[in-house]
Amino acid sequence: MARHRFIPEDYHTTLGWHEAVLTVDDGDTVTTLTVDAAGQDHTGATVAGRPNPQTGPFFVAGAEPGDTLAVDLLRMTPTRLVGWTGNVVAAHVIDPEDVRSLPARERILWDLDLEAGVARLQAPPKALERLAVPLDPMLGCFGVAPHGGQAISTATSGPFGGNMDYRGFRPGVTVYFPVFAPGALFHLGDGHAVQGDGEIVGNGIETSFEVEFRVRVIKGKEIEWPRGENNEFIFTVGNARPLDQCVQHATSEMLRWLAEDYHLDAVAASTVLGQCVRYDLGNIYDPAYTMVCKVPKVVLNSL
Amino acid sequence: MARHRFIPEDYHTTLGWHEAVLTVDDGDTVTTLTVDAAGQDHTGATVAGRPNPQTGPFFVAGAEPGDTLAVDLLRMTPTRLVGWTGNVVAAHVIDPEDVRSLPARERILWDLDLEAGVARLQAPPKALERLAVPLDPMLGCFGVAPHGGQAISTATSGPFGGNMDYRGFRPGVTVYFPVFAPGALFHLGDGHAVQGDGEIVGNGIETSFEVEFRVRVIKGKEIEWPRGENNEFIFTVGNARPLDQCVQHATSEMLRWLAEDYHLDAVAASTVLGQCVRYDLGNIYDPAYTMVCKVPKVVLNSL
Amino acid sequence: MARHRFIPEDYHTTLGWHEAVLTVDDGDTVTTLTVDAAGQDHTGATVAGRPNPQTGPFFVAGAEPGDTLAVDLLRMTPTRLVGWTGNVVAAHVIDPEDVRSLPARERILWDLDLEAGVARLQAPPKALERLAVPLDPMLGCFGVAPHGGQAISTATSGPFGGNMDYRGFRPGVTVYFPVFAPGALFHLGDGHAVQGDGEIVGNGIETSFEVEFRVRVIKGKEIEWPRGENNEFIFTVGNARPLDQCVQHATSEMLRWLAEDYHLDAVAASTVLGQCVRYDLGNIYDPAYTMVCKVPKVVLNSL
Amino acid sequence: MARHRFIPEDYHTTLGWHEAVLTVDDGDTVTTLTVDAAGQDHTGATVAGRPNPQTGPFFVAGAEPGDTLAVDLLRMTPTRLVGWTGNVVAAHVIDPEDVRSLPARERILWDLDLEAGVARLQAPPKALERLAVPLDPMLGCFGVAPHGGQAISTATSGPFGGNMDYRGFRPGVTVYFPVFAPGALFHLGDGHAVQGDGEIVGNGIETSFEVEFRVRVIKGKEIEWPRGENNEFIFTVGNARPLDQCVQHATSEMLRWLAEDYHLDAVAASTVLGQCVRYDLGNIYDPAYTMVCKVPKVVLNSL
Repeated sequence: MARHRFIPEDYHTTLGWHEAVLTVDDGDTVTTLTVDAAGQDHTGATVAGRPNPQTGPFFVAGAEPGDTLAVDLLRMTPTRLVGWTGNVVAAHVIDPEDVRSLPARERILWDLDLEAGVARLQAPPKALERLAVPLDPMLGCFGVAPHGGQAISTATSGPFGGNMDYRGFRPGVTVYFPVFAPGALFHLGDGHAVQGDGEIVGNGIETSFEVEFRVRVIKGKEIEWPRGENNEFIFTVGNARPLDQCVQHATSEMLRWLAEDYHLDAVAASTVLGQCVRYDLGNIYDPAYTMVCKVPKVVLNSL
Repeated sequence: MARHRFIPEDYHTTLGWHEAVLTVDDGDTVTTLTVDAAGQDHTGATVAGRPNPQTGPFFVAGAEPGDTLAVDLLRMTPTRLVGWTGNVVAAHVIDPEDVRSLPARERILWDLDLEAGVARLQAPPKALERLAVPLDPMLGCFGVAPHGGQAISTATSGPFGGNMDYRGFRPGVTVYFPVFAPGALFHLGDGHAVQGDGEIVGNGIETSFEVEFRVRVIKGKEIEWPRGENNEFIFTVGNARPLDQCVQHATSEMLRWLAEDYHLDAVAASTVLGQCVRYDLGNIYDPAYTMVCKVPKVVLNSL
Repeated sequence: MARHRFIPEDYHTTLGWHEAVLTVDDGDTVTTLTVDAAGQDHTGATVAGRPNPQTGPFFVAGAEPGDTLAVDLLRMTPTRLVGWTGNVVAAHVIDPEDVRSLPARERILWDLDLEAGVARLQAPPKALERLAVPLDPMLGCFGVAPHGGQAISTATSGPFGGNMDYRGFRPGVTVYFPVFAPGALFHLGDGHAVQGDGEIVGNGIETSFEVEFRVRVIKGKEIEWPRGENNEFIFTVGNARPLDQCVQHATSEMLRWLAEDYHLDAVAASTVLGQCVRYDLGNIYDPAYTMVCKVPKVVLNSL
Repeated sequence: MARHRFIPEDYHTTLGWHEAVLTVDDGDTVTTLTVDAAGQDHTGATVAGRPNPQTGPFFVAGAEPGDTLAVDLLRMTPTRLVGWTGNVVAAHVIDPEDVRSLPARERILWDLDLEAGVARLQAPPKALERLAVPLDPMLGCFGVAPHGGQAISTATSGPFGGNMDYRGFRPGVTVYFPVFAPGALFHLGDGHAVQGDGEIVGNGIETSFEVEFRVRVIKGKEIEWPRGENNEFIFTVGNARPLDQCVQHATSEMLRWLAEDYHLDAVAASTVLGQCVRYDLGNIYDPAYTMVCKVPKVVLNSL
């Protein structure tokens, strides 16, 4: 159960079968740094290309295709006091005719007040002078090497994770990924100080982070889509387009989980889901969208 | 501000320009009864046809096309102690290949324990013997007469409301509908004792209710999609397919609301939404799906 | 086998259970007039409201729910020499970001040269001075009363037909509709002198027509979606959103047809479709889109 | 203008920045071999992995990011007399409820009668004993290395081409790809002896081919999606999900083409497209679907 500290020097804009930067063991903890979505580090210097440059990959000893990689997301601490976002909703999240009058997108800056736990606009328009958004750090883009030797842009996502931009990927959560490559090859980056559902302006508040996480290998456990859990919920993640297909992937994955680990057949699982399921919208901005299917632990524990 | 009590004798399976059953004034409160989605009343007798037979319509004096009808949903009390649901998720909410092994859907019965505030299966499979789902009554299908003299099946939804199956339509919420017909012609029915997100088994726990609501007319206020608010959020509702289009309708409607009533231009509104918006999945079962765009009042009140 | 001539005086902007304007018998032929999508008749006078005002409905004696109505579309003759279209593609058929620079839509006029069989712009931009589009008349919106007493806007479509805007609905085709209301209640209107696939500017060349059609009742034949045939193909029609769902409806309907009338089980039908099917895009403009699944008769006749 | 003959020994199941197998010059012609979608060569031996193993990549001297690669598809000759397909439509191309009764998919064999120019089932069910499908060879999966160093599975497609499964990619067509990597890195494979629209059983008649093609570099010409032309049409290709988005990509690309090379502004281009455009369905089977936007040359040449 070693504790590693890794300072990245190079970054990847694909999740792929890249040479590992560090080998870690099952149960090890890693503290590392991530740059922001545009490659800016804690000094504001641009040290990597767009989009969403990734730290890693980390080779997890013992992880083989057909296993599951568990990642406990332990801590995310901003390493600078400024973040940025776009300031106009994406053209594709509003009615198409309304796009005609959509203003041009600009990058705006936010000050991160870590003591008060809020973000404030550096140069707010009059209407937003008092806006203070509670910080809620999360990882936008992270995951493992995709199947079949692919290298897939950090703009998008899939069964391997990637650019899911789901605000539920915050410290305190455990995320599970299917392992496709030897060592799993875990990548991470694109931290957000906070983000609304859907990432509809194309960004959370993008900044650099120090991230602490622990990896665990679940041997012989095969999953098809990312899963996760926190204190309240177990959840599954579907990445696709349209959102309808995200729901299909996430719901099918949840049915498998409920069958495997909770011994609920399709009827029992459906009966529970029908009246208790929750869905979250991850992102509706990236090439693949994300929906999350959640089941309250209080329900499962009562069975 | 009269208080009416209305006992229905006939029901509609379309929302349309039907003859009103009662005329009420701006500010009046109505207590009435709804039958369940299959037309069963408080005695269990089938008194109306499928699907989602509606009580009403109520003619709201003074409501004209171009106005908005506000409906304060005050109370929903089950009028019997048994409800029913399907027990298998819909074929279209799972991965298509998985449908091959989906069991046949059956109707199952739930006992409603109003004192304990939970629903329990009448004949649970072994795995669900202890399942107790907290009650959270809501209206599945309600709304006004659609534009242009249409009569639209209570299976589906649109700008006029209808079969939205959103669990946020619970007592304590105010819902706003665009008025298309003189008197608005408000219909309601399809109460659920509780429902998960998405209504993915095709039902909430379907039962009959006594419903109390108040109507108000907002003269000269034009909206395009249903809106609502509760203590925590203002929200807008998009009904369409795929879910992506629901998000477009709901987000465009929210941008209009933030401009009209909160004086936020597209940039300011986008800035707030980008980091603070929440989306709920209404239903992904009916011919038109439903997504809800929510903004926390705490944010808006802080501006 | 009577021949009727019917001159309409009123029009409907819903397909619904409206009072019939004429009762006709199985096998009868009707010659009637249609106004254009904006309600302009052969003189250019506006005699009906938008959108797509319908002539009819015609009550077909003997047609009952559970039967199929066959409509032989025999002839469509423009009754004036001018038509109109929009001149800008719909916002939703191009990439959302591109909508920002889309010009405003205007109505433009076309001269119909019936002798030469082409349409020419009345006031062409320089680049289109020589444009001559071959005429290919078709019906944009027609069908029967929808199920369950509904009245559905002529803006959209469904199992009952409606605003399908498919250029394959031209003279020489036989169209089959499921019968939901006694007498089927056949409506027609929205003729186009020609139209591209998808109706992507929102119009074919809209003009008024004299239309000749024959109705036939197929007793006890139940279909779920419109079907059709011409000399070359049998085809089925799916109306929904997104296009993916149109394909699902149309393909399922074709599998039913191939089973019922060609005795091909799912494997045999799939084998034929896999290598021989053709799909046409009806419209991608209206609230419900349209895709058409076609099988060549030469293949079926060779079996 | 050299003529190359290349016999592949290795194959790729991603389109990526792989080491080139041969460098060719602008204008050169290449004759090479492709194995079938499952990696079987002309002897029936399995020499490569699934799916759709690619011959190449070919490095085209002078092709740089920002250029366009033109590929003239000159000839496709089957190199064996047997092909195979699935025999059941994909679960996702029919109505979800209908999947419950869909039979299991099996591989079936077809004899290719090159003299008669037809394919016949080796072991036809009774109903298909006389089925003879005219051969119409096409390439299912081909394209260039994707942008940003990606390596993307031959299961899917994108701006770089890939598994588009469009039956219009037959000899006689010229296909244009955006160049992302130095040398373009052209890959090809997955030939079909014939295929219906949509590839709805998941296959055309899969077999091995000898393919002859010519490459040309169009310096400084930037395109965003694959384009093509044959004697009758120019066309653009959108690869995405749902089909609606394919239409958006293809239509936006066509508007760009009409502006650049035909000097039609958005209004003139829309006017032409509105009444003259044709759309083809490429595939609705793969992870990304394909729609093709076509404009008749006879129209463009008449302007």
